[in-house]
Amino acid sequence: MDNMDPGRKQLFESGQCCESNWYRGLSDVVSKLASSWDDTHPWEHGSAIPMPYQEAVLRIIDRGRRILFPGYFTHASINADNLEYYIGQELCMLFEDLSEQIDLAFCYQALAQSHPSDLVQTRGRRLALAFVKKLPSIKSMLMSDIEAAMVGDPAARSESEVIFCYPGFLAISIYRMAHELWRLGIPFIPRIMTEHAHSLTGIDIHPGATVGRSFFIDHGTGVVVGETTIIGDRVRIYQGVTLGALSVPKKDVPGLRNRRRHPTVEDDVIIYSNSTILGGETTIGARSVIGGNIWLTESVPPDTRVILKRPRLIYKGRQAKFHVEA
Amino acid sequence: MDNMDPGRKQLFESGQCCESNWYRGLSDVVSKLASSWDDTHPWEHGSAIPMPYQEAVLRIIDRGRRILFPGYFTHASINADNLEYYIGQELCMLFEDLSEQIDLAFCYQALAQSHPSDLVQTRGRRLALAFVKKLPSIKSMLMSDIEAAMVGDPAARSESEVIFCYPGFLAISIYRMAHELWRLGIPFIPRIMTEHAHSLTGIDIHPGATVGRSFFIDHGTGVVVGETTIIGDRVRIYQGVTLGALSVPKKDVPGLRNRRRHPTVEDDVIIYSNSTILGGETTIGARSVIGGNIWLTESVPPDTRVILKRPRLIYKGRQAKFHVEA
Amino acid sequence: MDNMDPGRKQLFESGQCCESNWYRGLSDVVSKLASSWDDTHPWEHGSAIPMPYQEAVLRIIDRGRRILFPGYFTHASINADNLEYYIGQELCMLFEDLSEQIDLAFCYQALAQSHPSDLVQTRGRRLALAFVKKLPSIKSMLMSDIEAAMVGDPAARSESEVIFCYPGFLAISIYRMAHELWRLGIPFIPRIMTEHAHSLTGIDIHPGATVGRSFFIDHGTGVVVGETTIIGDRVRIYQGVTLGALSVPKKDVPGLRNRRRHPTVEDDVIIYSNSTILGGETTIGARSVIGGNIWLTESVPPDTRVILKRPRLIYKGRQAKFHVEA
Repeated sequence: MDNMDPGRKQLFESGQCCESNWYRGLSDVVSKLASSWDDTHPWEHGSAIPMPYQEAVLRIIDRGRRILFPGYFTHASINADNLEYYIGQELCMLFEDLSEQIDLAFCYQALAQSHPSDLVQTRGRRLALAFVKKLPSIKSMLMSDIEAAMVGDPAARSESEVIFCYPGFLAISIYRMAHELWRLGIPFIPRIMTEHAHSLTGIDIHPGATVGRSFFIDHGTGVVVGETTIIGDRVRIYQGVTLGALSVPKKDVPGLRNRRRHPTVEDDVIIYSNSTILGGETTIGARSVIGGNIWLTESVPPDTRVILKRPRLIYKGRQAKFHVEA
Repeated sequence: MDNMDPGRKQLFESGQCCESNWYRGLSDVVSKLASSWDDTHPWEHGSAIPMPYQEAVLRIIDRGRRILFPGYFTHASINADNLEYYIGQELCMLFEDLSEQIDLAFCYQALAQSHPSDLVQTRGRRLALAFVKKLPSIKSMLMSDIEAAMVGDPAARSESEVIFCYPGFLAISIYRMAHELWRLGIPFIPRIMTEHAHSLTGIDIHPGATVGRSFFIDHGTGVVVGETTIIGDRVRIYQGVTLGALSVPKKDVPGLRNRRRHPTVEDDVIIYSNSTILGGETTIGARSVIGGNIWLTESVPPDTRVILKRPRLIYKGRQAKFHVEA
Repeated sequence: MDNMDPGRKQLFESGQCCESNWYRGLSDVVSKLASSWDDTHPWEHGSAIPMPYQEAVLRIIDRGRRILFPGYFTHASINADNLEYYIGQELCMLFEDLSEQIDLAFCYQALAQSHPSDLVQTRGRRLALAFVKKLPSIKSMLMSDIEAAMVGDPAARSESEVIFCYPGFLAISIYRMAHELWRLGIPFIPRIMTEHAHSLTGIDIHPGATVGRSFFIDHGTGVVVGETTIIGDRVRIYQGVTLGALSVPKKDVPGLRNRRRHPTVEDDVIIYSNSTILGGETTIGARSVIGGNIWLTESVPPDTRVILKRPRLIYKGRQAKFHVEA
């Protein structure tokens, strides 16, 4: 009781709460929970090797962002003299962390599929290096995304503000790293990354989606970009936009997971807030503009504007009602 | 000044910012803020006993999730031999934390209601034990929710991915724990829990809502499930769905808080993204499907599909406009 | 290898992953990234003085909230005797942190604009004091916001619950602090603050927006309030509401950033969920009520209700379809 919080200690010492046998009740619950655990079940994890660890994955994301934008997201002072040391040190630590998490992810996947550990290979470092080699091209993509934000948002004051503050840029940064890991066939880690971005920003980009250069998401809360979506260059989308699937029960369509289920958005398209575009055969043609609150499940040719019919307003005097027919 | 940041130290030593009397300005502000503090006011908290503490509540959530899914959300390696120790240790710590927070919550509630501390009872451990005994049935509900995700989402690769990564499953996990605490009549803590889930996922399920087995929320950002909502078994909802109240000023309707204000959603209903269903007398009949972007304030019989009239598309040549009339 | 995780160590000792020359691959990447870094580029930060630091800004937010609501967001027990010490200590630390971050923000802005450091002035403490002096009036505004939540939400049980748990109140608290910093002309820090609130709550209020007393945001996920929005007193808005700009490419309109681009919402207006109101010349007149899912780009006179035409329901027997024409 010595480490006990003073408030609680006071309650204890008042003697009011000292009913006996608390732990008998607890141990019953422990037995029940432990006996319900079934090592052969696909999601019950029992092994000498731990699972991939979310905190390590988040550390990898943070290091990645510091490497891509030296001087941001850190206390450290960066200059031309120490730059290479700084990047080098961060990169080595990212490499070690990532190698380990990749190994664990493959080990876990093999266990989850009831294969013994002979499937487990030490591919972590090889794949981590393959990822690290992509960082310069990820940076080049992100620089185009920064410029897209400067062009697309009148409130953007500087590139630094975009890097520092813009949730759309944060989500895209994490997506671009996760997508490279996805392309390398690494399980779990890409999705942990993009769901972390989703949690921070409300922007849910599946790591399997394909996104061109100069992508800008403004505000972004509620954006959903599905697994098989293809987005061209210089596309701009706003909060609440869904690029989703027409829902079909998985069991009804064998092989559904491997088909295109999400739309294609060609170059230079703008999609305003809270619009929903669904289906693997839906293509939004280049340079089209989709207005707000649109629900679209079919293709649109290039150079098209899709808007809601202008609302008819009915004014009804004082204590008035204004009907809007959308 | 010795612990000062080098950058700041440099500024100080330049002598430019050493205007005197900073602290006179500060102490004026302190006096103003302190004198505006009124111990008799319902929300000004002054007491020898601290308030319930958000970080402790978040720790309880994390322990709950580790107990329900051993091996996840931890570095530790779990196997059949150490499982019972692991669960036992986590459960005892959860029990201690929760007992303390429950005591503090009741103490605080009594203070807030201007009752002296003689209302404070040491019910923390009793209620914490009652909660802990519900964990096996919470786990059984959550296992049905995992299966619902596997059935409902073609992108779901494994049960592990659902447990690890799916924000809908995270929000439902926290809701199911919070709901049991809510049913035990514990103040503050259930809402702190579900608002934490809301912050992490954008999914706002009130702890008072009633939710059946096999519940699946996909993507989930913007989902709102109100306090008196009743949801049946095998219901699936998408991002941006609101199950809300028709708004009435509280003062106009005495006892409003205790009435049904939110809808009933029967078994096997699907509600697509960004639809809004309002009102305590609104019932969505079993097996109905509510399309996207629907605004509904009245009941729908079983086996019904509710969809927006197909948009009429008007193509207007090149530099074209496509009007969508929803 | 001694500090290595046991799981990883086992993999290493199996000898499978010891391909040589990992670090040659890494050092190539370091060189590429370092040589792409261009100190003269507006967003590449190189300097002996570090950038403003997000974690410090978040610490300032937390201290601000503890100062405004003593006893909340802390383990500490607050009472009439220690109150002034508590506020005083928190305030001094806030003042120091904020002074430093303001200095760094101005330094960084000057560097980013390619001006040498002779533009850097030690205005941090002066501006930090000006901010601190606003805290009593911020508190008074926030007390009106708490009352607005009690009036507007039947589920609100107590003022404490609002302070503790309501994401709308959290977002407004952070906005009100950030707005004062914005009015003082401080770069970066206000936006870092409101984007932090955005991340926690899904509510994106630009620090430049002007918001009257007794403001209530319920649920809040997906709310966007743009930079030049003006909101009167006793306004209430729900989740998914956008007060936004009619989008125009910045390059087409010189000086666009400094014009009103976002709407005016007069006193006592209510705007229901997922409605979108756009444009700098759009005014919602006092006491008007805007229903859910409305898309508005023109003004509405006072005392007006704007609602969607009641949906026509078409019932089609069993295996029925219900068409809703919004």
